[in-house]
Amino acid sequence: MTTVHRVYNFSAGPAMLPVSVLEQVQRDLLALPGVGMSILEISHRSKAFESILEQAEADIRTLADIPSNYKVLFLQGGASLQFSMVPMNLLTDSRTADYIDAGSWSEKAIKEARRVGSVNIAASTKAENYSRLPRQDELKLTPGAAYVHMTSNNTIEGTEYATLPDVGDVPLVSDTSSDMFSKPIDVRRHALIYAGAQKNMGPAGVTVVIIRDDLLSRSSKTLPTMLNYAVHAENRSLYNTPPAFAVYTLGLVMKWLIAEGGLRTMAAVNARKASRLYAEIDRTGFFRGTAHADCRSLMNVTFRLRTEELEKQFIGQSQDAGLDGLKGHRSVGGMRASIYNAFPEAGVEALVQFMREFERTHG
Amino acid sequence: MTTVHRVYNFSAGPAMLPVSVLEQVQRDLLALPGVGMSILEISHRSKAFESILEQAEADIRTLADIPSNYKVLFLQGGASLQFSMVPMNLLTDSRTADYIDAGSWSEKAIKEARRVGSVNIAASTKAENYSRLPRQDELKLTPGAAYVHMTSNNTIEGTEYATLPDVGDVPLVSDTSSDMFSKPIDVRRHALIYAGAQKNMGPAGVTVVIIRDDLLSRSSKTLPTMLNYAVHAENRSLYNTPPAFAVYTLGLVMKWLIAEGGLRTMAAVNARKASRLYAEIDRTGFFRGTAHADCRSLMNVTFRLRTEELEKQFIGQSQDAGLDGLKGHRSVGGMRASIYNAFPEAGVEALVQFMREFERTHG
Repeated sequence: MTTVHRVYNFSAGPAMLPVSVLEQVQRDLLALPGVGMSILEISHRSKAFESILEQAEADIRTLADIPSNYKVLFLQGGASLQFSMVPMNLLTDSRTADYIDAGSWSEKAIKEARRVGSVNIAASTKAENYSRLPRQDELKLTPGAAYVHMTSNNTIEGTEYATLPDVGDVPLVSDTSSDMFSKPIDVRRHALIYAGAQKNMGPAGVTVVIIRDDLLSRSSKTLPTMLNYAVHAENRSLYNTPPAFAVYTLGLVMKWLIAEGGLRTMAAVNARKASRLYAEIDRTGFFRGTAHADCRSLMNVTFRLRTEELEKQFIGQSQDAGLDGLKGHRSVGGMRASIYNAFPEAGVEALVQFMREFERTHG
Repeated sequence: MTTVHRVYNFSAGPAMLPVSVLEQVQRDLLALPGVGMSILEISHRSKAFESILEQAEADIRTLADIPSNYKVLFLQGGASLQFSMVPMNLLTDSRTADYIDAGSWSEKAIKEARRVGSVNIAASTKAENYSRLPRQDELKLTPGAAYVHMTSNNTIEGTEYATLPDVGDVPLVSDTSSDMFSKPIDVRRHALIYAGAQKNMGPAGVTVVIIRDDLLSRSSKTLPTMLNYAVHAENRSLYNTPPAFAVYTLGLVMKWLIAEGGLRTMAAVNARKASRLYAEIDRTGFFRGTAHADCRSLMNVTFRLRTEELEKQFIGQSQDAGLDGLKGHRSVGGMRASIYNAFPEAGVEALVQFMREFERTHG
């Protein structure tokens, strides 16, 4: 048996998956045990696939303690399609939706919502390059709003909510694409949660939507069927052919999360990984974190060097050292280390050692 | 090394894939050669993935001889989402779209188009249970229509166009989900072609759209961004995170098709497989084909027995014999053998032998 060469992948997503999950996918790729077909071939109407889908849902419910009055949906199109589906389904009766503008992805969500209906920007930190999250006392919420939309973690700017904003009785909708299941989530305080899988939960190609039952009555029958939450809920994500392989692999990641000890354990591991990196960033002032200290993301650690030239060297040399994907998003520059659930502590340690050595030789 | 037990999967899709493709996916699952990451983990903004996407497109262009004034897009949501995207993008300027109603999937496409704009049913064979395709002389086309929509193969009713309808200068839009790349396709006679991958082209989770350049100007800037063909074309299918694994696997299937000899070879093999089955169906009258002889599908062979009780026995016993998925669609009953590109001739032969034996013991 040959050893497979694998690098540390710091990219913002798709992102690293647990090796044990990859090995199981690999082992059963030609035929699922007892089925005689590959997961790539199996009918979505078969009992075998229905059981895979149901198990994935059951494990998600266990992991996040999801109450029975919430539906779990497996959809396609990523968070980007949810930017439209959320207002198309929920922004009804000429009401207004409140959006918290705290990062580049919030901005995209707002742009799509404005095509559908009335939007109020409850708060924005755009003028500060989204380097922090709006404080509770800055939120200008609309009484009786259709919903409040937030982004729980901002991959580009490296900020993350540690506690949820208080929005009273208005339904809270959260794009959790980049920190879903990296820590416990209080589902009961949300009305709708959505996340593309490709950061903490699985491969690209499936989007998880958790929606409270009472919101389903807002979905108009005149919507395009594929964009109607109520249709997908009624059909238990089998209205049409689902992305079977992505659902299957996500299910294996859920099993892995449970085996690792669940979301509390993940939160502790993720906090340890991020602390290690932020401590190194703050150690001497050679590196500089870009996000306000009290808003720092545990998922995407963003930092700069004193010149862009030095940053270019850092990115090039780190790649040569097997630390891939440390270049920051093109819209903001700098460096970004994305360290989601499956990113190993050894990889964080390797980056810290590289940073230490880089500072020694370029400081 | 253990031998993997695999059954013959006759289901209508997802469907069998070439074993050599499954083996390559399996081999490289932990790390793509020279990349050090799994295809499930790799950033969609990486050079390695961009090259996978470009190669898949190039191979599709080669296989189907696609002119340079057509774009090839990799989208999500299956044909079901295309049912809405087609009219949302193309049914503009208060025009009318002509739809040929020749099967259950046409009917669904019509239902979605009516939510968007004016639809004319150019012809329908619904009153005949869609057992045949409308003839050219039955088409009542609208002069200056926005487009004409057809379904090239009807999975449920087992009919397939052997030659394209003549629609003059009006753009022809075709849902080819169930026969795309099973035979040569005259792209130049189409304005837009769409197909979910999961029958002849790859796993579920990616939809291929081939669209003529001039149609892109119809896409309104007010559309939800993810539903806008022009946006996806401009971003070369990388507006947001694509279903990377499904695109990769589809690319491997395209390589396999080219290696097998291309679409002419596939057409010959597929015709041979279907002929063998239809000959057996017609041999004595014990079995009865459901589609008119001149409209029979080479992909989905639909047939009945004299009683539903006998059909139930046939389906149960065939499954026990390792012939899976022969039950017809729940809306029409009977039996259906789906024999797409990767379905092996040995599997057709096994079914013929089973039918012969079933007739001997139940005839």
